[in-house]
Amino acid sequence: MSKAVVVLSGGMDSTTLLWDILNSGKYAEVLALSVNYGQRHSKELDLAAKTCEKLGVSHKIVDMASIGSSLLAGSSLTSGIDVPEGHYEEESMKSTVVPNRNMILLSLAIGYAVSSDAKAVFYGAHAGDHAIYPDCRKEFVEAMKAVTKLCDWKEVELEAPYVDSDKGDIVEIGKQLQVDYSLTWTCYKGNEKACGKCGACGERILAFDKAGIPDPIDYVKSWEEVLADAKLMVANGPEKK
Amino acid sequence: MSKAVVVLSGGMDSTTLLWDILNSGKYAEVLALSVNYGQRHSKELDLAAKTCEKLGVSHKIVDMASIGSSLLAGSSLTSGIDVPEGHYEEESMKSTVVPNRNMILLSLAIGYAVSSDAKAVFYGAHAGDHAIYPDCRKEFVEAMKAVTKLCDWKEVELEAPYVDSDKGDIVEIGKQLQVDYSLTWTCYKGNEKACGKCGACGERILAFDKAGIPDPIDYVKSWEEVLADAKLMVANGPEKK
Repeated sequence: MSKAVVVLSGGMDSTTLLWDILNSGKYAEVLALSVNYGQRHSKELDLAAKTCEKLGVSHKIVDMASIGSSLLAGSSLTSGIDVPEGHYEEESMKSTVVPNRNMILLSLAIGYAVSSDAKAVFYGAHAGDHAIYPDCRKEFVEAMKAVTKLCDWKEVELEAPYVDSDKGDIVEIGKQLQVDYSLTWTCYKGNEKACGKCGACGERILAFDKAGIPDPIDYVKSWEEVLADAKLMVANGPEKK
Repeated sequence: MSKAVVVLSGGMDSTTLLWDILNSGKYAEVLALSVNYGQRHSKELDLAAKTCEKLGVSHKIVDMASIGSSLLAGSSLTSGIDVPEGHYEEESMKSTVVPNRNMILLSLAIGYAVSSDAKAVFYGAHAGDHAIYPDCRKEFVEAMKAVTKLCDWKEVELEAPYVDSDKGDIVEIGKQLQVDYSLTWTCYKGNEKACGKCGACGERILAFDKAGIPDPIDYVKSWEEVLADAKLMVANGPEKK
């Protein structure tokens, strides 16, 4: 049995993926890798660490915080620009994209896999992100798989098992695995309670609703209220500019 | 006219490339990007800065030094392992490979291009490195070009104009452009004078010999002596283990 590296953001997708891979029993050791690329808040990274502690998984956090502000300027997730509220598909949400974030994360994870003799790198790209994040699309994932095979003598495979799933499917998997979702964070804002209003919250809320389980994290409003807001956001569709 | 990003190591290939792109007059602005990934010495980076100063080019150095030691362990270029002497093709030279270095550098350069509205990323991969660095091979470059096209809405092209050239061809180009090769460093060791014995020195020495110009940097021995050594290294071929 070989080792695997999992790119772990501390969000619900990659956290489910980590539980999923451990549960599969296919790997002798699973190594989690998180990257601090200068996010506005470290809530996700703190929760990623707690999940790894709970699961007894080795966890590395790479500090690239200075790069977020200097090299990859222009994203509201790494700069002083206000995080937009509203539907994911709105034009304004494009400002949440960190330029080339996934290729950067994956290139580091692949380097880590090579240096630690792991044979696979897992990441939680999924269908829900497609519209707004080019580097979550299947075409990108397939192209990354191809380049991963060529980057070293050692064979490393890139795996993105959720690439055809949506967030609701992922919570469905997590439900079976009894994933502790209280140790995940999705809201773009780093407040004590999730805002329930940003695109990320909206998608998360609807995913839990689809899977038929309550979201264990705290929102600023009651579950019923944030669920109603999220459904309204989808019904209204993206704002036309 | 658009902007271009050049991955600049401070070695002779990427320095020639920078001069070459500036000389082409095709870009309104050329941005140089260097990465400190925890190299054993900063000589190349210091020289990259001097070249940019001389050419009036904006230069960013990304500091990822901690990653070299923590994440990408196992390479003699970033750890305490002795740098091997001798021919490039020897098995021992594999320890000079930083796991997935080029994909990491390129992913950062592409992110920088996206955030600074540059349309092209240039890097100096060339045929001479193929045997020992998988991520300098044409197949890798082609696969990286494909993934680069997919990573963002903004169109960024990856360009590696020297991928079919060897180091001798590159010095030939530099000779025409009157590149200041005194501001480049190739030796794996960071001493005051180049050792003339490592694989990197050997290849550089033979490249200058092929182009018929003297190498302006200082070696521990005379040019005639290091040239004779380099020719002998090639004649003997890689040591069989």
